[in-house]
Amino acid sequence: MIVGILGGGQLARMLAMAGQPLDCRFVFYEPSAECCAAPFGTHIRADYDDWQALRAFAEGVDVLTYEFENVPLASALFVQQFTRLYPQANALEATQDRLREKRLFRQLGIATPEFFAPDCLDDLHGVARELGFPFVIKTRHGGYDGKGQFVVRSAAELAPVWSQLGGRPAIAEQWVTYTREVSIIAARNRAGDLACYDLAENHHEDGILRLTLPRAGDPLYEQARAYVEKLVLQLDYCGVIALELFDVDGALLANEFAPRVHNSGHWTIEGAVTSQFENHLRAILDLPLGQTAQPGYCAMINLIGTLPDMKKVHDLPGGHFHQYDKQPKPGRKLGHITLRQAEPVSLAALTEYKEQLYAP
Amino acid sequence: MIVGILGGGQLARMLAMAGQPLDCRFVFYEPSAECCAAPFGTHIRADYDDWQALRAFAEGVDVLTYEFENVPLASALFVQQFTRLYPQANALEATQDRLREKRLFRQLGIATPEFFAPDCLDDLHGVARELGFPFVIKTRHGGYDGKGQFVVRSAAELAPVWSQLGGRPAIAEQWVTYTREVSIIAARNRAGDLACYDLAENHHEDGILRLTLPRAGDPLYEQARAYVEKLVLQLDYCGVIALELFDVDGALLANEFAPRVHNSGHWTIEGAVTSQFENHLRAILDLPLGQTAQPGYCAMINLIGTLPDMKKVHDLPGGHFHQYDKQPKPGRKLGHITLRQAEPVSLAALTEYKEQLYAP
Repeated sequence: MIVGILGGGQLARMLAMAGQPLDCRFVFYEPSAECCAAPFGTHIRADYDDWQALRAFAEGVDVLTYEFENVPLASALFVQQFTRLYPQANALEATQDRLREKRLFRQLGIATPEFFAPDCLDDLHGVARELGFPFVIKTRHGGYDGKGQFVVRSAAELAPVWSQLGGRPAIAEQWVTYTREVSIIAARNRAGDLACYDLAENHHEDGILRLTLPRAGDPLYEQARAYVEKLVLQLDYCGVIALELFDVDGALLANEFAPRVHNSGHWTIEGAVTSQFENHLRAILDLPLGQTAQPGYCAMINLIGTLPDMKKVHDLPGGHFHQYDKQPKPGRKLGHITLRQAEPVSLAALTEYKEQLYAP
Repeated sequence: MIVGILGGGQLARMLAMAGQPLDCRFVFYEPSAECCAAPFGTHIRADYDDWQALRAFAEGVDVLTYEFENVPLASALFVQQFTRLYPQANALEATQDRLREKRLFRQLGIATPEFFAPDCLDDLHGVARELGFPFVIKTRHGGYDGKGQFVVRSAAELAPVWSQLGGRPAIAEQWVTYTREVSIIAARNRAGDLACYDLAENHHEDGILRLTLPRAGDPLYEQARAYVEKLVLQLDYCGVIALELFDVDGALLANEFAPRVHNSGHWTIEGAVTSQFENHLRAILDLPLGQTAQPGYCAMINLIGTLPDMKKVHDLPGGHFHQYDKQPKPGRKLGHITLRQAEPVSLAALTEYKEQLYAP
């Protein structure tokens, strides 16, 4: 089976690794010369609007998927004519516009923070009166890891922020004082079976995920599962999906979803019976899904900007090292560590371990 | 880090997969055009007595290992001059001669079946008187998966068997009526740390391993561990080692050892916290070893001769499919399945599942 992936970063790389024991070959369509998935298959280097290259790519594979949600919608719709694309383009359409995404959540009865779509600076003043300060304003399209997002703290900031947006369509959102940021990762296959992983508690810094602690038996699991189930049914979704949520004193508000394997699910490689990567492949290949249980306990540390000494990672009982073979750069995801333990991992212990890793 | 592997079959392939998340590149030295590890690195196709190619290979890698114990000793000794080889050539030397191997066991106080080294047909008659019928006769060198082994059932068979051996040095062994065939897999790193996996119960047919059931808490584990510990200390061993034993009413008799990752340890990919492949790499790369515990329960089915429908494998909760990308051929190992369960797996259930897999 030949699997085509739009994108050739670490998610494509880990999908390819998961596909090796199965019967899969991989082709990566990645416009950049930097393609850390390349050693695991064929790298087609061409732009997303190179229709000839896209068509040849799509016709040369049995099934297509993508590793990031900013694949141009036109390209996704185009390749769908030649081969099966999972998740289908409608999932991209829903997530590429933050306003549309939030409206979809609302329509499905999935609670979200308050939001508005200001069209001009005057509107923005009105929004500020509704939401109070601080509130958040984001571009409707593009941006990831906190890019294209601003926190507006006072009336004096309204005009400068509006001008920084430079006319790009925007969505203003209520500032949520949350107890935790969590995510639920689910896989749905072509037969419609749904498998959810444990609710993951996520810790960000500078808009970048740093630590994930999957919490077996979390009291909010059922609520999160019900939300993601509504979403996949509505989208007739196939593949792995990640729904990011705020836990506000025990109530969940949906923030956004990613129609792909997700950083907050990297712990599943060692930590779950079946990894999110294998389940994504099983889903799109029309296979039964694998079990998602977490035997024992685990946690994940993202390696951002620089890699620690591998020996230090392995010195910790239960430490597993993953490097993505990318050039170091500040703020860049270069790898991650899964920590497996017999007892639940505390945030304090995980933070301390991370500090030790990077200590000179 | 560049790891060179002598041999390019499925064991090299799975070692390379385990090395991907670590910082490893792989070079496979494999005389045959059939090299299922090739997609995971560079395949050097040359003979084991091509000294120039061997030297270039050894000089181009940071550390060397092998995936099968029949690497010619001269080749192993030769490459050792140019780079670190783990396990060292002395392990090959000990295992390539079944008589030497058994004598090593004896010397270390590791119990074995009775054995003799007949030099001529007259000797063999004497051996038959000592051992009674049936007994086993094997070539001292070469042979695997039951090849080059004969069961001698009566005095009338002595001469024909001797002539079949055709003058090859041989070892005659007591016929052991065992309760179980078991193996213990251990990893020892360059620092001398030892980590053992659960004792595995193995089921062969036609001399080929078919099923493995790792048994957490097996009453014979400590005895097996003590045996393998003696062996690795004596050999100053580095890497993964497999010791195959007969369980005779609760007493262990050593049959043979393999100085490499082993088919009876394939369950560790999903079934143990750290796989035998990752631990072999950690060992030879001078890294701390990973945990060997078995969270939950699992079992392994070898896929011999033909592959079942992948969908059937995945239909079973907890089933994980591994294919080696080899041409189907009767008696050939083409892949394996790891079955993960919340309860201990019985041999009966495993056998039934295997039959279902191959049912039309």
